[in-house]
This record gives sequence, C-alpha cells and structure tokens, in this order.
Amino acid sequence: MGWLRDPLAMRDFVVVGHLAKTTPDFLLEDIPGTSGRMDILCRCINSAFFLSHGLRRDVRCFLVLKGGENSKLIRIDGESVRHLNPDERTTAALIRKALAIESGSEWTQSTPGISVCLGGLPKVLDQLPGILYYLREDGADLRLEGPISGGTFVLGDHLGMTEAEEQLLQSRKARVISVGPLSLHADHCIILIQSELDRVGQG
Amino acid sequence: MGWLRDPLAMRDFVVVGHLAKTTPDFLLEDIPGTSGRMDILCRCINSAFFLSHGLRRDVRCFLVLKGGENSKLIRIDGESVRHLNPDERTTAALIRKALAIESGSEWTQSTPGISVCLGGLPKVLDQLPGILYYLREDGADLRLEGPISGGTFVLGDHLGMTEAEEQLLQSRKARVISVGPLSLHADHCIILIQSELDRVGQG
Repeated sequence: MGWLRDPLAMRDFVVVGHLAKTTPDFLLEDIPGTSGRMDILCRCINSAFFLSHGLRRDVRCFLVLKGGENSKLIRIDGESVRHLNPDERTTAALIRKALAIESGSEWTQSTPGISVCLGGLPKVLDQLPGILYYLREDGADLRLEGPISGGTFVLGDHLGMTEAEEQLLQSRKARVISVGPLSLHADHCIILIQSELDRVGQG
Repeated sequence: MGWLRDPLAMRDFVVVGHLAKTTPDFLLEDIPGTSGRMDILCRCINSAFFLSHGLRRDVRCFLVLKGGENSKLIRIDGESVRHLNPDERTTAALIRKALAIESGSEWTQSTPGISVCLGGLPKVLDQLPGILYYLREDGADLRLEGPISGGTFVLGDHLGMTEAEEQLLQSRKARVISVGPLSLHADHCIILIQSELDRVGQG
C-alpha cells in the first residue's frame, strides 16, 4: 500500500528513553526494573500502532535508547511490522531481538518492520524532514494548532528532555505543543495526538 | 482528601472482561495467553489512574470478570490504592492477589484500595447511581455531549458487549457515546475520556 500513502499525512513518533538499555540483557520478567524503563517505550509503541481491529499502517515509531555506552535507534514501521501484539512483554521481546543483532551506522532489520542502528536524536531528526512537534506540558494546545494531518512528534520518557535535547529541538524549529491541561505519560500523549489527527482525517 | 471530593465529578470506569479469569491460576509470564486477556484490563487500569506525577485520586475502576463459573468484580479505588505501577505485570499480580482470596457477595479488600466480590455487571451498575455512559464506536461524539465533569463509563473488551449487556445498559438509560471516528481499544478510549473531562475541569 506504499503508493497510496500521502507523505504529508504520515505520523512519526520519536520517543527518547534516557535510561533505556542498548543491550538485550534485561529480563522480560521485570521489564521496569532491569531494562531502564523499556516498559514506557513498549506502551508508546502500543499507543502508536493499535486500532481496535488492526494496526495503523501510516505510522512510524522511533525509539532513542540512551542507556548504554553508544546510543541506539529502533524504528518500527507500521507498513511492514509483524508479530506486534498489544501487551508489553511481546513488544519488549521484539526490542530485545533488535538489540541482540550487531548494529552499525545503517539501519538493519531485526524482524519484519523493525530495524536498529547506532545513533541518537540528531540522527533520527535528520531523517524526518517534515514539521516537527515537541510535546511538553507547557506547550500550546494541540487543538488550537489548526488541522494537523501528520508530522513528527517528539516525546520524552519519565525524565523529560535534557537541556541539550531541548536546544536541539529549538534549533530545528520544533513547535512546542501539549495535549491538555495535565502532565501525562508519553504513551497517553500519543493516544491524544492520534485522536486529534484522526478527527482531522475524517473532518 | 475524601472530604474534598465532589461526587458529581467522580469518574467511574467499568470494563467488562468476557473471558477474564476469576481464579488466580494464570501466568504472569504469559498474561494474554493464560488469563483470558487480563492484559486488556491491566492497560485499562493504567489509563484510568496514571498521571505523569501521581495517580488520579478521583477515579474508581471496576472490572467485571466473566471467564469463570461465577463472575467476579474487582474494584480499584484511586483514593486509597497502593502498590500500583504503570506496567502490566505489576497490575496483573495485584489482580491475581485479589482473585486468590475467598470472595462472597460483599466487597473484601485484598490489598490497599483493591477489593473483590462475586457479581456481574448488574450489581456494579446498582452501586453507581450517577449518569451512565456506554462507549460504542457508533455512539454520539463525547465532545458534543456538552461539558461532562464525571459519570460512569462502561466499556467492553476486545469482544465488545453481549446482547444481554446491551439490553441492560439500554434499560438503565445509558447514553451511547464514542470518542472519535475510529474504533479503539478500551484503554485508549479511557485516555480520551479522561482528557475531555480534564479539559472541562480546567475550562
């Protein structure tokens, strides 16, 4: 269905895991305690892709894993991803497979639709030239941004964003937005973004 | 903080798990495969309670577990719940503890803020006399319902609702609502409801 996709309507989510492990030596029996909170990233993947009956094929999700000597990126492509289930453990197992393969500077596929490479937030932003949104609790209300049909949405984990990441996003002219009056988990923010975009698509 | 609570602003979520086990004999290593999809209910609990920094204290969540000889109800009360973490496994472990105790027709507390009793959807609706909303993909748009500050929101799992449950909700004058143009998982619907209610609270 690649030829049907409108590049302006693509939805790219980038989630930064500041402590998330870059090696597969964490336990599926204790994901929050052993993986650098990979559970947060697993829930973001659920929010990014799942519909009641099927997957969102026009979405990509990029994880920035910073809890290792060299940062790694994982990309999940809704168009081709397979073996994705809504539960955290299955997703964590897919991430572990991605981290188990030797990764270089180019994307390498670990399972269908999931790829991994070395790199950090600057590298992934270089690959996403569309309009950039940065989710922060004091940002402008997404509903007042006008109709958004797609874009790149950058979110932090439970630690928010570092000063350097803030500056990077500012230098890339990211629009600072929020999804409501309260501060929410990244996976909950993704649900609210998806819903706004769904409404534009049907409006 | 009980004395501060406005009963009209309470948020009660009722989620029906049609296959969800009423006994604790399921594996935390394979929640989706052994518990009758308790993973769905765990994610609903996450959506109902978690804020970025803390829990929503004005929320209660009721699970209707129908995957056993006698249906059971589990109640999680945001005002007093403890040991709740955002990951599925921790929540499933709390549910398993609730299912391990002998339950009768009255609520019995298993861990702080979590109680269990025998019963089904009619019983829980009897205990929630406020305005009733039933989430269904063809329902009226929640945003057009006018400002809602609280209420009881009933959601089905991946199997939707049975004919008998539909009739029960109709007989209780439930308003049939939806949260957007696409059919979504119950836990995602709860996020969208919470956000609408948060906006009313701050408006």
